[in-house]
Amino acid sequence: MATIEFIEYEDASPEVRKVYDDIMATRKIDWINNFWKALAVQPELLRRTWNGVKEVMVPGVIDALTKEMIYVAVSVTNGCEYCINSHTAAARNKGMTDEMLSELMGVIGMANQTNSLANGFQIDVDKVFRNGGRPKQ
Amino acid sequence: MATIEFIEYEDASPEVRKVYDDIMATRKIDWINNFWKALAVQPELLRRTWNGVKEVMVPGVIDALTKEMIYVAVSVTNGCEYCINSHTAAARNKGMTDEMLSELMGVIGMANQTNSLANGFQIDVDKVFRNGGRPKQ
Amino acid sequence: MATIEFIEYEDASPEVRKVYDDIMATRKIDWINNFWKALAVQPELLRRTWNGVKEVMVPGVIDALTKEMIYVAVSVTNGCEYCINSHTAAARNKGMTDEMLSELMGVIGMANQTNSLANGFQIDVDKVFRNGGRPKQ
Amino acid sequence: MATIEFIEYEDASPEVRKVYDDIMATRKIDWINNFWKALAVQPELLRRTWNGVKEVMVPGVIDALTKEMIYVAVSVTNGCEYCINSHTAAARNKGMTDEMLSELMGVIGMANQTNSLANGFQIDVDKVFRNGGRPKQ
Amino acid sequence: MATIEFIEYEDASPEVRKVYDDIMATRKIDWINNFWKALAVQPELLRRTWNGVKEVMVPGVIDALTKEMIYVAVSVTNGCEYCINSHTAAARNKGMTDEMLSELMGVIGMANQTNSLANGFQIDVDKVFRNGGRPKQ
Amino acid sequence: MATIEFIEYEDASPEVRKVYDDIMATRKIDWINNFWKALAVQPELLRRTWNGVKEVMVPGVIDALTKEMIYVAVSVTNGCEYCINSHTAAARNKGMTDEMLSELMGVIGMANQTNSLANGFQIDVDKVFRNGGRPKQ
Repeated sequence: MATIEFIEYEDASPEVRKVYDDIMATRKIDWINNFWKALAVQPELLRRTWNGVKEVMVPGVIDALTKEMIYVAVSVTNGCEYCINSHTAAARNKGMTDEMLSELMGVIGMANQTNSLANGFQIDVDKVFRNGGRPKQ
Repeated sequence: MATIEFIEYEDASPEVRKVYDDIMATRKIDWINNFWKALAVQPELLRRTWNGVKEVMVPGVIDALTKEMIYVAVSVTNGCEYCINSHTAAARNKGMTDEMLSELMGVIGMANQTNSLANGFQIDVDKVFRNGGRPKQ
Repeated sequence: MATIEFIEYEDASPEVRKVYDDIMATRKIDWINNFWKALAVQPELLRRTWNGVKEVMVPGVIDALTKEMIYVAVSVTNGCEYCINSHTAAARNKGMTDEMLSELMGVIGMANQTNSLANGFQIDVDKVFRNGGRPKQ
Repeated sequence: MATIEFIEYEDASPEVRKVYDDIMATRKIDWINNFWKALAVQPELLRRTWNGVKEVMVPGVIDALTKEMIYVAVSVTNGCEYCINSHTAAARNKGMTDEMLSELMGVIGMANQTNSLANGFQIDVDKVFRNGGRPKQ
Repeated sequence: MATIEFIEYEDASPEVRKVYDDIMATRKIDWINNFWKALAVQPELLRRTWNGVKEVMVPGVIDALTKEMIYVAVSVTNGCEYCINSHTAAARNKGMTDEMLSELMGVIGMANQTNSLANGFQIDVDKVFRNGGRPKQ
Repeated sequence: MATIEFIEYEDASPEVRKVYDDIMATRKIDWINNFWKALAVQPELLRRTWNGVKEVMVPGVIDALTKEMIYVAVSVTNGCEYCINSHTAAARNKGMTDEMLSELMGVIGMANQTNSLANGFQIDVDKVFRNGGRPKQ
């Protein structure tokens, strides 16, 4: 059970309903998931977070499915149950298959393993990797 | 300075050289980065880790650049300096631009924010998200 | 279900009861929550942990409610379910309203987002921020 | 060295300068720290992140210094070097003394310890803590 | 419920059964736990992960029980529920008593506390600790 | 540079010197490392933390070297630079060889990988692992 109450659509203020309507229109769905109902206790937090997610998740130079898989990678590394479940579902909606999910987890698992080894041995960053490997100016 | 010594190619056993040669051949480079030199103190750890990375990072149902961006997402969330630097460089080698890096960070940042909110409010997973949203059997 | 059994008051040794009594007296409650009952398997661990919590959470130059909100911030960032629930409840007991909880989560979420961005871009600490910004000696 | 270049004020587009001006006006300072200069490569990311920080950090039902200490708590738990340094400096600017910093760290450290214990023993959340201890409706 | 289906022994391909048989033979048990059944959707991920675990967990210069306790320490710090439960059980099978579990948690908790303090105060590493304290060459 | 000043022995109050003397006597060394000098700004924090470490790290049902390796495992997973360096050095002082360090890292790395996979696939804990696998009462 959440540590804060949920605001259902029928009990929501016009300000909150406006965001709920935008969520449903943007995602082409007809319901609001628990995450947004919890945020709606503080309409500013709801509005700001939804606007952030909407701006970030729109296809840009990175496509929408790749963005969902990156979201899953962060959520797995943080161990956030709600986020893993909701963004795995979102990624499936955007075309992720079981085989892609397995391959995604393979990369995430390997990254967490080698992160430990790099941290554990306190390995100095090779000069050539400094500056993000971007071309010299 | 690393907590363990580095094994240079010229000091390496045949077993270690075999892995070093495979790393250079696979990546089409002529040097070995510090990470592998630290692991080479324990040849089994070197071999096993390299084989894991090689298998996981080969293009499959997910392409190589996407895999590198997922690696970066995990490394950022873990705060692993070596890993962020080396995999950002690797992603650039595979075509990531400054604009893509910014968009990638936008997604990673937003994911970490909403992970906090979902955890913080202890929000129950919506039934429809359970089971990873995969089609009913 | 816990990985270790719970020690109930009626089954507790005099040593453990002494700590239980102090917990109830300090907090002005008449029951012991599961956390302490699990620690009581090892009376030294119980005693040391309770003494630490008692010393740290007493109002000092930082007031008791602020301390609980800091506790929540750490627990959210770690994703610790038990800790989020128990310290959110404790903060409410000390006066935190739904609006304060939302504002608290807003700060925690934003901090996790900007932490990712600072780590992800591997930004050098500005000189003026070094030394924690404390006055020169 | 950052993985992305910095945009200095004199090289910035009008769109970026507008945000830089707002940062300096809001904080009553005459310089821009590295964090914002890195984000400015992607003006949308800069604008959105600054707006989020500005909205969240303004004094509300929680005061500005408490918010900075919460920011520090998250940054310490994530181990984000840039964030710890910049927000410790910001908290000092808002009145945090050495004694308060020590007390803050005492709470953060104790929270991380008890988080481990609660996770490690896999302790069930007490019923009374569920629902965040908020009053029954 | 898992985000991916489980592959039961009777539905498994010969490739997957070979790994399942090796798991049961190595561990001297007659059942497969959920973790492996989820990985089996991608036989390569199953094979690679099992081989890694088998190589790493075999007694070497560090004994098997100590390795399990180290596994628990990582899992607790990551807050991974499945891993804490399964490796606490594995450690008990190898001889860990309630008292040892309590002592283990005492160390893990203290380590998480002092990690926070070292990060929070941004303490420079003493020269003598650099290089992992290994003898000069 | 630390975010807080260091208290050197010659500038320390009798209360702080008493702890410093105990640290040196317990560890049979003649110097104080930076960690304790930073904590000494708040003598209560110094005293409490040192007492906690001393109690926890004393050989008990788990030996001193194993405890140091567990400390390293937590520090690596948290990515705490100071802690990895100081406890790797401490473990070497207690007999850890390069080979043991490599084996330790192998376990830590594998644990972080499988933690990701268990979290990522949201795998339900097998019933037999619940209750920490301890014998039925």
